[in-house]
Amino acid sequence: MSPRRPKVVIVGAGFGGLEAAKALNRLAVDVTVIDRQNHHCFQPLLYQVATAALSPAEIAWPIRHILRQQRNATVLMAEVSGIDLAGRCVQTSAGPISYDYLVIATGATHSYFGHDDWIDFAPGLKRIEDATRIRRSILLAFEHAELAHDDAERQRLLTFVIVGGGATGVEMAGAIAEIARQTLAKDFRRIDPRSSRIILLEAGPRVLPTLPEDLSRYAEHTLTRMGVDVRTSTPVINCDRRGVDLDRGRIDASTIIWAAGVVASPAARWLGAEHDRAGRVLVRPDLSLPDHPEVFVIGDAAGVHDQTGAMVPGVAQAAKQMGRYVGRVIAARVDETPSLPPFRYRSFGDLATIGRRAAVVNFGYLRLKGFVGWLFWSLVHIYFLIGVKNRFIVAFTWLWDYLTFHRGARLITEVPPPGRG
Amino acid sequence: MSPRRPKVVIVGAGFGGLEAAKALNRLAVDVTVIDRQNHHCFQPLLYQVATAALSPAEIAWPIRHILRQQRNATVLMAEVSGIDLAGRCVQTSAGPISYDYLVIATGATHSYFGHDDWIDFAPGLKRIEDATRIRRSILLAFEHAELAHDDAERQRLLTFVIVGGGATGVEMAGAIAEIARQTLAKDFRRIDPRSSRIILLEAGPRVLPTLPEDLSRYAEHTLTRMGVDVRTSTPVINCDRRGVDLDRGRIDASTIIWAAGVVASPAARWLGAEHDRAGRVLVRPDLSLPDHPEVFVIGDAAGVHDQTGAMVPGVAQAAKQMGRYVGRVIAARVDETPSLPPFRYRSFGDLATIGRRAAVVNFGYLRLKGFVGWLFWSLVHIYFLIGVKNRFIVAFTWLWDYLTFHRGARLITEVPPPGRG
Repeated sequence: MSPRRPKVVIVGAGFGGLEAAKALNRLAVDVTVIDRQNHHCFQPLLYQVATAALSPAEIAWPIRHILRQQRNATVLMAEVSGIDLAGRCVQTSAGPISYDYLVIATGATHSYFGHDDWIDFAPGLKRIEDATRIRRSILLAFEHAELAHDDAERQRLLTFVIVGGGATGVEMAGAIAEIARQTLAKDFRRIDPRSSRIILLEAGPRVLPTLPEDLSRYAEHTLTRMGVDVRTSTPVINCDRRGVDLDRGRIDASTIIWAAGVVASPAARWLGAEHDRAGRVLVRPDLSLPDHPEVFVIGDAAGVHDQTGAMVPGVAQAAKQMGRYVGRVIAARVDETPSLPPFRYRSFGDLATIGRRAAVVNFGYLRLKGFVGWLFWSLVHIYFLIGVKNRFIVAFTWLWDYLTFHRGARLITEVPPPGRG
Repeated sequence: MSPRRPKVVIVGAGFGGLEAAKALNRLAVDVTVIDRQNHHCFQPLLYQVATAALSPAEIAWPIRHILRQQRNATVLMAEVSGIDLAGRCVQTSAGPISYDYLVIATGATHSYFGHDDWIDFAPGLKRIEDATRIRRSILLAFEHAELAHDDAERQRLLTFVIVGGGATGVEMAGAIAEIARQTLAKDFRRIDPRSSRIILLEAGPRVLPTLPEDLSRYAEHTLTRMGVDVRTSTPVINCDRRGVDLDRGRIDASTIIWAAGVVASPAARWLGAEHDRAGRVLVRPDLSLPDHPEVFVIGDAAGVHDQTGAMVPGVAQAAKQMGRYVGRVIAARVDETPSLPPFRYRSFGDLATIGRRAAVVNFGYLRLKGFVGWLFWSLVHIYFLIGVKNRFIVAFTWLWDYLTFHRGARLITEVPPPGRG
């Protein structure tokens, strides 16, 4: 009788979870990937959905389609509610799923630093639904301003506040400035969208704090030239439905976008595990849970120090590397080959785009900015998209929009349905 | 002092309303287009959004973008609640809007023949939101079937009922059959999507009743070959959350799609006007309201007889012709030139697609079917789409999907958000 095939359960089909699943291809194990969504979302381009440049389907792909050729993989669309470590079982909305190896790759969500009620006024950008919600909010602000009869209300409607000056905040601010100054410039009759105020608030002393200072300065300068009011060292004290309060003064705004902080998913709670302040599970050098070598935590959900002692950043490339690594660790255990050396993070560089023809790229040894940076940024993102067709359509859309200033996905949907007549 | 410019208000930016607005370009009038959506939707391709072949933005375009170059046109995104005929004023959510000429182009919505509660179980297909709702419902049915533990429940989840054998019903049935038999065939591990039942119910004796009998027979034969269970002379007696009741027997189904009937929008109620059983406002030969020559009703909202005495059908080409005609009538009145002859509908032919390489086209003197019909259908629809970019992307998507059997927009969104951890 052949021995029972080990069961590997992977929770979360983001960058880390998918890489882990793929690394187990051809191994004599049964892989089950559980996600509450049916699609993998390419989060680095989510801001382009939020700003009407791309359609959701262009950056999302059905998980089961990605893994359709991997015969040892099963995909379940289900919600995880808890983990029974002793019984080696994941509790899900589709019933309990038992495992021999468990990989937690549940990512991160927004952190409002204890002010969870701000979520209603200042949505963040993690899922497709977040992006279409923000898109609706931005486009409706212009529509309502066109209808407003009061100058102060019109000015409030045309004020967009982005909280947080990391890559997402910089990208959103640049894209909204382009919408207001270029895309919509001639679409309205009563308002001039070019009079919009786009304000980027950063609590720290500079935008893009993980990049070298000269690139931060370049980004701030470029945003300012695009008409963004960049305010560093400006923490937000309070958010409400009609604006934000600062240390000094208040900004009335109809649209507030939260790009300030993330917190790991509830993995630490499920596991009853030690975690850092950002909720990341503290794992051993092989990314396994202390006392549970059969359980691994990867990606944004994991708190891992790299070889220099710094935390591995919550970026796609780190999640992918962890996924591949854990796949190889499990393979070595199943095949009873020597165990692997500890996980090492290898950064291939940081990058952020600012606008139509400006981006910053840092490889350490080489820094790009401006149009060359933007070209490089575009090629990298197209390369990493899933699916030849998506790559082609996104490349075509970017080229088209670059030449025409258009943004084709300017749809306001999900307006509450009107009463039927 | 120059005379006051006449104000033309157009309610609804579908095919008819947009054509009316464009026909008034360069005329010395102020045109205001009011729609509750920000986008014009290309309804003939809505079923392709509902079946995950196209993204919403590929068949929808911001109304104000379409009219951005027309300097005498203003677009307002607002909901109309009533019309004051005596005061010549439209009541809207953005306040009252007065007019000298009024064009009502508010289209039609689904009719459940007095069973309005069926709308919750059997959504119809008129708006972008309807299409994404149906798409979610179809895709979730397969996901839930993969999780089901009970054979009867699995069979119910994999049963899709389409009520109504007109063009929309035939197109939906064919597309769902393709999803089940081809697109998803290898994506699941526990279910075989090819075992799905797709049932098209038509109360009358044949599908596509407005086309010649031989094309109806061809459509029915093609659908059957694709695995659709076509049942003519089969009225639906009742719909509920778990299926439909027929004269003889019941079908348990998780997805029911309503393509059986339409009723005109509330225009007749707003106007206090005479209307037919389908709610269409009965207008004079120049499409104006009896006793109100300054008010016109066009498109699906209007009940108009053509030169043969038959009702002008509720199709895009008829709405467009009415829009252009009314624009010219108003121009003649404003310019005080001789009035126009009565409206004449000129049919350019009927067409419906059945699947990947089959469609039926009827020009009267010429009938196409099969692959030639499908090619013709594809070219016509690409030609009529708005925007060069949309045309290109849709053409590329169709070619790609034709070669690969893929459907790229298989997104399940708007799942109720899970509790934050």
